[in-house]
Amino acid sequence: MSLNDLLGGTSVYWMNIPADGRDIAISCRVRLARNISGIPFPHLLDTAKGIEIMESVKAAHEGADGLLLRSMHLFTFDQLDILDRQTLTEKHLCSPEHAASGERHRGIMLNEDKSLAVMINEEDHLRIQCLLPGLALKECHDLAQQLDDELEQTLDYAFDEVRGYLTACPTNVGTGMRASVMLHLPAAQMTGLINQLLQNVSQLGLAVRGLYGEGSEPVGNFYQISNQITLGQTEEDIYNYLQTIAEQIVEQEIQLRERLMAEMPYQLEDKIGRAYGILNNARLIGSDEAMRMLSLLRLGIDLKIIKGISIYALNQLMVAIRPAHLQKIGGHPMEALQRDVLRAEVIKQKLSCQEAD
Amino acid sequence: MSLNDLLGGTSVYWMNIPADGRDIAISCRVRLARNISGIPFPHLLDTAKGIEIMESVKAAHEGADGLLLRSMHLFTFDQLDILDRQTLTEKHLCSPEHAASGERHRGIMLNEDKSLAVMINEEDHLRIQCLLPGLALKECHDLAQQLDDELEQTLDYAFDEVRGYLTACPTNVGTGMRASVMLHLPAAQMTGLINQLLQNVSQLGLAVRGLYGEGSEPVGNFYQISNQITLGQTEEDIYNYLQTIAEQIVEQEIQLRERLMAEMPYQLEDKIGRAYGILNNARLIGSDEAMRMLSLLRLGIDLKIIKGISIYALNQLMVAIRPAHLQKIGGHPMEALQRDVLRAEVIKQKLSCQEAD
Repeated sequence: MSLNDLLGGTSVYWMNIPADGRDIAISCRVRLARNISGIPFPHLLDTAKGIEIMESVKAAHEGADGLLLRSMHLFTFDQLDILDRQTLTEKHLCSPEHAASGERHRGIMLNEDKSLAVMINEEDHLRIQCLLPGLALKECHDLAQQLDDELEQTLDYAFDEVRGYLTACPTNVGTGMRASVMLHLPAAQMTGLINQLLQNVSQLGLAVRGLYGEGSEPVGNFYQISNQITLGQTEEDIYNYLQTIAEQIVEQEIQLRERLMAEMPYQLEDKIGRAYGILNNARLIGSDEAMRMLSLLRLGIDLKIIKGISIYALNQLMVAIRPAHLQKIGGHPMEALQRDVLRAEVIKQKLSCQEAD
Repeated sequence: MSLNDLLGGTSVYWMNIPADGRDIAISCRVRLARNISGIPFPHLLDTAKGIEIMESVKAAHEGADGLLLRSMHLFTFDQLDILDRQTLTEKHLCSPEHAASGERHRGIMLNEDKSLAVMINEEDHLRIQCLLPGLALKECHDLAQQLDDELEQTLDYAFDEVRGYLTACPTNVGTGMRASVMLHLPAAQMTGLINQLLQNVSQLGLAVRGLYGEGSEPVGNFYQISNQITLGQTEEDIYNYLQTIAEQIVEQEIQLRERLMAEMPYQLEDKIGRAYGILNNARLIGSDEAMRMLSLLRLGIDLKIIKGISIYALNQLMVAIRPAHLQKIGGHPMEALQRDVLRAEVIKQKLSCQEAD
């Protein structure tokens, strides 16, 4: 797998249409934080020790028996320029903090469809992630767990019989697991119920964030909901709890969409039609506005007001219009105005290709 | 000419593309206020005296020798329902005040292409109007004057050797003439120069009004500019003065459009593209917003950013989306929401017909 195959294009497995065929639960993720015994956590690490970790992971990868680990490709960040690393973030495969540094003891392992990723020397020595379309947290967990087991055949994890997996940040100690779901909730927003809903979610011990996780503001009615507690519960308890709550939110959003269609069909069709008109005709469009308009277009596709465009294509588009992807498409660094022009072109082209399909 | 031929459709002569082929000077108008000698002005008139006026005008029309007067058709307002009368206002053929009343001593004469109109028993006994596309005030004046002469062959006008034509309102005494031009000035608005421009126009002794004359607010960057003074100047002086100033404003708007195209082409194309997208995709649209979007579309057509749509079609559309025309199209009285829905449909249909041409 070449660097270009790894990073080119916008197709990533999580973008596929979920099993329920709807636009509400976009994707789900389980990540496991793991550290190698006897070596300081990354924030206390010197380069030599960092390279030691990287070499251990390389050895584990190269000598792997396990199916998943053998299917992965490892890249150190000195091989990738800043734009390449940022495209990984924009595809939800790498944290922004990890992408920021191009040191050779930092890196990432990815499988072909990018449903599995392992960040090396991020906040922990290893961050194992599985990312799937829709609401499939058990499958996420099982795959992440299997990859974890395969890594553990070679690597010696820092583990305490009482506290569980030891992690750089105490909030991850225990299972070292964080599970999250990405939900699209435009009807909750339009009916004014979103704040109450998010407050309820917080009271249930879950965290609400934007599309790019910690530190990102929600835009375009996309919300990442994740577990806060990693200690004192089994992994199964954690993902089952999140799965149940996410299913309830999805059900509520379905009902609110039906209510909007019944109570204000013209207004709803108007908002969606205008968003479609703007996306197809703007000559300049900023990232936030594009996300708001794409949110409405997704709703229109889900409610069959807009036909001939797939949610899969919109998932690709939502990634393609991010700054690093745009600059990769443009082939050179770009100012904000240039990006706004190219973003508008990329959107128009994608939508017109879809319609012609 | 049947009532339906008179009122149906949206084609009126002033909607034609002006001689300069541009979108800036839409139309021009000359109107002459005339009163019959020895009969009170309309606001002091009882119905019997009003009918006397109407009968004199009918007699003048029926016995006419003059070409223009013979080509006209006379309708009393008891023949026209309120919607029919309002469509005349929306076509700029009748004042809103005149259209409001369905009394049989009020009425209108129109020629086939509606370039000539005579309101009977409006503020004055006769208001003779000529309305032409573009900036052709001399032609307007000459035609209105000829029709006036033809009427005067039978009717005895109230005229004072010193003061000139006597009129109900003292501001019209003298020539009894008002000349006006309808200008579309989006570049003056976008560059922030419109207020200074309108202030200059006022200081030059001209009045600035909206699309529907006295009492109407400018919307969509359409401005009606007219002479204020009717006394102490010849008719030629009045229309030549207005023609000269209007030509200067048109020249300035042309330069501002060129400046916008040179200095901010993306932003301009963006505004125009979005307006086009909204007009083609809205499911609901209010009258003011539609006018603002159509203003941008006109600018786009004039600057060749938008192709395949004619200014003639947009002139028709600007009239067709007014409330009375919409209700005539719908075939029944409508609430605001219903009109907003139909307005969006009429716009989409007109634009798609044009594109297919």
